[in-house]
Amino acid sequence: MAVRAFAAQKPKGPLEPFEYEPGPLGDGQVEIAVSHCGVCHSDLSMLDNDWGQTKYPFVPGHEVVGTVRAVGARVRTVRPGDRVGLGWFSQSCMHCRHCMGGDHNLCPTAEQTIVARHGGFADTVRASAEWAVPLPAGLDPAAAGPLFCGGITVFNPLVQFDVRPTHKVGIVGIGGLGHMAVQFANKWGCEVFAFSSTPGKEAELKGLGAHHVVNSRDDAAMAQLAGVLDFILVTVNVSLNWPAYVNALAPRGRLHFVGAVGEPVALPVFPLLMGQKSMSGSPLGSPVTTARMLEFAARHNIAPVTETFPMSKANDALERVRSGKVRYRAVLANDLSA
Amino acid sequence: MAVRAFAAQKPKGPLEPFEYEPGPLGDGQVEIAVSHCGVCHSDLSMLDNDWGQTKYPFVPGHEVVGTVRAVGARVRTVRPGDRVGLGWFSQSCMHCRHCMGGDHNLCPTAEQTIVARHGGFADTVRASAEWAVPLPAGLDPAAAGPLFCGGITVFNPLVQFDVRPTHKVGIVGIGGLGHMAVQFANKWGCEVFAFSSTPGKEAELKGLGAHHVVNSRDDAAMAQLAGVLDFILVTVNVSLNWPAYVNALAPRGRLHFVGAVGEPVALPVFPLLMGQKSMSGSPLGSPVTTARMLEFAARHNIAPVTETFPMSKANDALERVRSGKVRYRAVLANDLSA
Repeated sequence: MAVRAFAAQKPKGPLEPFEYEPGPLGDGQVEIAVSHCGVCHSDLSMLDNDWGQTKYPFVPGHEVVGTVRAVGARVRTVRPGDRVGLGWFSQSCMHCRHCMGGDHNLCPTAEQTIVARHGGFADTVRASAEWAVPLPAGLDPAAAGPLFCGGITVFNPLVQFDVRPTHKVGIVGIGGLGHMAVQFANKWGCEVFAFSSTPGKEAELKGLGAHHVVNSRDDAAMAQLAGVLDFILVTVNVSLNWPAYVNALAPRGRLHFVGAVGEPVALPVFPLLMGQKSMSGSPLGSPVTTARMLEFAARHNIAPVTETFPMSKANDALERVRSGKVRYRAVLANDLSA
Repeated sequence: MAVRAFAAQKPKGPLEPFEYEPGPLGDGQVEIAVSHCGVCHSDLSMLDNDWGQTKYPFVPGHEVVGTVRAVGARVRTVRPGDRVGLGWFSQSCMHCRHCMGGDHNLCPTAEQTIVARHGGFADTVRASAEWAVPLPAGLDPAAAGPLFCGGITVFNPLVQFDVRPTHKVGIVGIGGLGHMAVQFANKWGCEVFAFSSTPGKEAELKGLGAHHVVNSRDDAAMAQLAGVLDFILVTVNVSLNWPAYVNALAPRGRLHFVGAVGEPVALPVFPLLMGQKSMSGSPLGSPVTTARMLEFAARHNIAPVTETFPMSKANDALERVRSGKVRYRAVLANDLSA
């Protein structure tokens, strides 16, 4: 049965109804009936071919929540009727050292849900079973989609870099990713500093879990934080005054990037050296870490703050993401009859 | 009794005999009769006032080995007659979080042996007792001095960043620091890649413990290492093609600096992000890590390869360090009658 989707035919083009034949379901694959799909800034970057790897027709969507409709012969982890989510990755080789070591997100040949294949702005989408992660009870399926890309992207560094509940953690950029990071870091037990250049959001950010709101354009406020923060998570993809953030790190601190900042980050070596400081990056998370994140989110009532659009209005949702107006994450509710 | 030392009176000036009165010995201090003192590139940087913090008359020397001659009333860790070493740090506050947490080398008010005080090119030198680290039996005092600055600088990252014996480790720059790093990494159990731009050193570097010697000026050789190394230790203080080294890192790999590279290091974010890679720096090590390094060096017969000069010929030694000709570390043997 043909998949009914929304696709752009060219860079920056509008999404239009598009059908494709998915062929036979693979032995290790699942077919997911999409109920909701988040809209991530990476969908726009791919739509615009910013990274030079987009194939058209292009179907966005990599923050999928839905119900398993069919499974391949070898699938043991989910069954038809299970509620699952699908994020940026849709397959990994399962035999390289990274997959075998539990780091499927570092698999060099991992398949990406919207790169050279069709994503979740559709009635159905397929993936290898290992990347269809079951939703625990207690998570609202209508809001859970963004956890599968934005959520795991900001949760995974807490795990990978051993962020401790006693740490002081800065979150730079309070948008789709950052507003989830603030919630996770708060429930992780940390003292949370939200860095924002938008005035007047203080009460809102404290409501999300920030203990302190710092105006990142206020040089004096930045200088006051010298040596304070153990971990700074950068969720923006534009260049900021990075040496000022290194200065805000405590000894042993880490400046960590999850946003694809386009320009190189230039850091003076001496402050890194004297304070034993690090800078780093990371991509999403493994299926197991994703499952743990979902449990943690369910237990702590962590959820993205969403604006919901019918999937048939995907172009409106994309425009709102492009204009930076969404507070904080757009989600499409499927109004295609699957 | 006046200390007899060698001091420069101005930036880049020659060392000349110089005496100073050290005053009463502090309660927590030790006085060390210097038998040997290594010559580090940082002595030159300070002599030349490269870092803008040198006071003249300037007495270099922060790789001291000697015998305790006197101890203050509160000193419990060493006694007169003990053989000890003294490195870059000569005092730390002992009450800040870093000192209290065992990271005395990160103490923000740590005293540095040759910054605003007089160093070890002298018959005696003083330090707070915690930084006078006893030499274990089995280490040759005539060669041990360089362990107290260069040695601990390259050993400490193996401890701090949890380098594993199963790791592939690159050492960039095989000079005073690097030739010790190769030995440490080899005995740590690692597969060691020595990066050198000097041709014809292969046999020598393999003798030190390198399993592979890579010509860092050979772009093809560098490209062949893509994704291979878990840890790269940079001991040089000049700018290299850093993105090529990031490319040589395996996923989860770290590019680590211990040399005070003058220019900022500019790294593209995307490769860090996709491979969960880090860059970082670190300064020397704590007294406890220094003690562990000394035990490790003694147990594994690790020693700097030295060229020895009488201390009265300190200017000759400095010139040889300045010209980059020393293989691999100069040490002064005290010929002043103490």
